[in-house]
Amino acid sequence: MTIEHKKQSLFITLEGGEGAGKTTQINRLAEALTREDYKVITTREPGGTPEGEKIRSLFVRDGGAQWSPLAEVLLVLAARAMHVERVVRPALEAGKIVLCDRFSDSTLAYQGYGRGLDAQTIGRLSQDVLGDLRPDLTFILDLPPELGLSRSTKRLAREGLSGFEGEDRFEKLEMDFHHKVREGFLMIAKNEPERCLVIDATVSVDAMAGAIWDAVRKTL
Amino acid sequence: MTIEHKKQSLFITLEGGEGAGKTTQINRLAEALTREDYKVITTREPGGTPEGEKIRSLFVRDGGAQWSPLAEVLLVLAARAMHVERVVRPALEAGKIVLCDRFSDSTLAYQGYGRGLDAQTIGRLSQDVLGDLRPDLTFILDLPPELGLSRSTKRLAREGLSGFEGEDRFEKLEMDFHHKVREGFLMIAKNEPERCLVIDATVSVDAMAGAIWDAVRKTL
Repeated sequence: MTIEHKKQSLFITLEGGEGAGKTTQINRLAEALTREDYKVITTREPGGTPEGEKIRSLFVRDGGAQWSPLAEVLLVLAARAMHVERVVRPALEAGKIVLCDRFSDSTLAYQGYGRGLDAQTIGRLSQDVLGDLRPDLTFILDLPPELGLSRSTKRLAREGLSGFEGEDRFEKLEMDFHHKVREGFLMIAKNEPERCLVIDATVSVDAMAGAIWDAVRKTL
Repeated sequence: MTIEHKKQSLFITLEGGEGAGKTTQINRLAEALTREDYKVITTREPGGTPEGEKIRSLFVRDGGAQWSPLAEVLLVLAARAMHVERVVRPALEAGKIVLCDRFSDSTLAYQGYGRGLDAQTIGRLSQDVLGDLRPDLTFILDLPPELGLSRSTKRLAREGLSGFEGEDRFEKLEMDFHHKVREGFLMIAKNEPERCLVIDATVSVDAMAGAIWDAVRKTL
């Protein structure tokens, strides 16, 4: 017996600060869509390809490097170029639903609002990488940075990663930065209400999953 | 006794295919300038900063990764952003002569002419990294790719590197590619004759050093 999968190209991104629960929600959404016979792939940025994961490791795992905001954007875009060409576009062309943990909005929120690189430069540099590709739907998981970082640090500690890519990194990045990033995400959502939905990430995992599922069903 | 150094900001780049002798000529030129009491720094791309060297290692030492031309340009530009901001501009502002092994012309020759990414895209992406920075003088060391690759492979073998980043890599990159790169460099020189001087790299090291020194003295 061959199961007939539903064909629908849809590009959904999950955005938000650290510890907001993006990975959990992506997995929940992927399960829900798979139950309804959609073909789904889940992926993440920076990374998403073997080449992109090498770039990710340059700044996630390397506390010593001090990248300028412009260099960070160019690195992220190099990973995105590979990811879009090798993973995202082929999946959409094959009629799959792509669920992506972070995409362009993170670049604008972190390197733009957070580190102060102007939005025009980011937009200009991004254009050659994205072409006409835009997410169909974006969930912005919003919560106070203090709460998100506390959750994220606890999770890393459970995984035995604290002090490696966890606490050290968070100690260095100031709370002020994370507040700017949060404001950035909320500004993006305000500017593009037809694409972006802000999800309160202080509520339960089930409540968040329910809100996300309701919005996705409307677009199917 | 304090030696009074001559202050002169000058940005000189050496370009050309592999095995053309750029490193040797940069060292010779640095010695000649230092003898005349100029303050000189020598640097290279991709690389030139600790961060940039990490990027360099992503594609010089990693045969497994298959970067698209666009991703390669973005990686090179990320390294260049760091290099320009942390090394090149500060040295020029301090009245030094900067001698750089590869710069923007290599990007246009390798990723543009060699790998087929259009020059407009490369120029557009480069603009945010370079601003108004351009080399004052560029030497394009020209020789047939067959000869350059043969020299380069022999040098790597002497250094015990063959089969690591040497022969394997050359075997994979086709000769056709290196011919396109050479044509690219010659086209760049033709388009910007006031900045670029083509140096015949089939002659002796001394003869090349003489030709380069004559040109540099005229600009001092």
